[in-house]
Amino acid sequence: MNDFVRVVEVGPRDGLQNEKTAVATADKIALIDRLSATGLRTIEATSFVSPRWVPQLADAAEVYAGIDRRPGIAYPVLVPNEQGYDRARAAGVTEVAVFTAASEAFNRANTNAGIDESIERFRPILARAAADGVKVRGYVSTVLGCPYQGEVAVSAVVDVARRLHDLGCYEISLGDTIGVGTPLKARRMLAAVAVEVPMAALAVHFHDTYGQALANIAACLEEGVRVVDSAVSGAGGCPYARGASGNVASEDVVYMLQGMGIDTGIDLPALAATGRWLAGLLGRETGSKAGRALAAT
Amino acid sequence: MNDFVRVVEVGPRDGLQNEKTAVATADKIALIDRLSATGLRTIEATSFVSPRWVPQLADAAEVYAGIDRRPGIAYPVLVPNEQGYDRARAAGVTEVAVFTAASEAFNRANTNAGIDESIERFRPILARAAADGVKVRGYVSTVLGCPYQGEVAVSAVVDVARRLHDLGCYEISLGDTIGVGTPLKARRMLAAVAVEVPMAALAVHFHDTYGQALANIAACLEEGVRVVDSAVSGAGGCPYARGASGNVASEDVVYMLQGMGIDTGIDLPALAATGRWLAGLLGRETGSKAGRALAAT
Repeated sequence: MNDFVRVVEVGPRDGLQNEKTAVATADKIALIDRLSATGLRTIEATSFVSPRWVPQLADAAEVYAGIDRRPGIAYPVLVPNEQGYDRARAAGVTEVAVFTAASEAFNRANTNAGIDESIERFRPILARAAADGVKVRGYVSTVLGCPYQGEVAVSAVVDVARRLHDLGCYEISLGDTIGVGTPLKARRMLAAVAVEVPMAALAVHFHDTYGQALANIAACLEEGVRVVDSAVSGAGGCPYARGASGNVASEDVVYMLQGMGIDTGIDLPALAATGRWLAGLLGRETGSKAGRALAAT
Repeated sequence: MNDFVRVVEVGPRDGLQNEKTAVATADKIALIDRLSATGLRTIEATSFVSPRWVPQLADAAEVYAGIDRRPGIAYPVLVPNEQGYDRARAAGVTEVAVFTAASEAFNRANTNAGIDESIERFRPILARAAADGVKVRGYVSTVLGCPYQGEVAVSAVVDVARRLHDLGCYEISLGDTIGVGTPLKARRMLAAVAVEVPMAALAVHFHDTYGQALANIAACLEEGVRVVDSAVSGAGGCPYARGASGNVASEDVVYMLQGMGIDTGIDLPALAATGRWLAGLLGRETGSKAGRALAAT
């Protein structure tokens, strides 16, 4: 496995979105700037969803305006609809991400729309993005389980991923939103999607609710995926399991990749220090075990 | 992978040994009795090393005498030498475990003896155990790294494992004592040992210092191992990395195995409840993410 994996840092968006402690705009900007200095190639910066839904990210435009955007690093932002796209574009954004669930029940609960309706909402965004030269990433959530309907058929995941790819998303991130997946299931799901969408256009996105995230990532790397989403310090949480842990920690992912001889271009000690700094802002210990161990050695 | 994995619960020994909070003898007995009710087949009960080295386990004989030993469950205890074997036998023990490092530097620092000398010390124990009808498990520590010498040659691991097996140990547990291993290295190490010792006589033992344990276990399961050591609540710690986490949590291992369709015979909710109860005794939150998530759902 002597090759390159691109780690997509989602801490400033997916991480902070699920953190209760309010983080100041200046600290969010500092977080992203610190992350930019670690060698990461993609940093999801914020979300232009309604501040009513996600008050933590109500300062999206200020954050985006404040960060030091470096050449060679992509700073995608989440947009739920055309209004979000308008706001993001007004802020100068050049890459966005759209999202839908593979579970109909989850999508209705989360966005008050069915999957078909969500995808139809994305159609004009993708068309405008193509005209504007804006890249679009697509998220598929609940790929290994749903808090409302339980099991999610692999065929539903494949279908949604293929439709987002057909619509023009350059990359589809497959998300185990509630962190219930295990390695064999994760790998089989990825393999099924890869029949319809090229593996090079796929990413995996695991939450560590049951401690399975890194094992799932390792299994998916064996299957061939080379893009992995993660959040520094394991930021985030799971709104469907109180007290549960959040995104897989970027530091643990990078430690594993380095140990497997896979290049990431990332400075692990700098990343771990950023994770501990963020944990301090959030008033707790880092959620990365590698981050803790590196501080102790 | 539709088969059986035996989980060897090491919390009462390897876990508690590295915990600073003193646990009362009655609580240790209650812990083992609760574990016995979960379906576990092997529970390492305590250690007959010198109380000077491990004060937490100075009550080994009382613990062993106090537990409700159920038919069909093995309760091995650690013995460092013949005096330890004598004490264990006097307490009525019918299965013991011996230990040596694959790293010469670690073995000298830890036991004041070279590897050859350690193995010679075990020879009379194995001979007496054979005569006494006592089963002996062998631990090889520092199989993926050493806090003193750094890298540990795979050939040294293979050599030590083979010698313990030749001496009569029915099972060799390969331990990443400082938790630095990653999946490919873990799998390659296991594969190398399996050339000399039958896979059916091998177990893996990972610490979660860098968050890699479950990914390493998944990789070793793919390689064919079917015995996994773990500690309920992720008890323990790493004396070589302050603040670092301990053994991989049994609950997370069982969650993964169940998700992979592998039978363990273990009642996961009962195990997770025991882990939370132990964490309460230790004055902290459970170290098992599955244990936390199961409590929240």
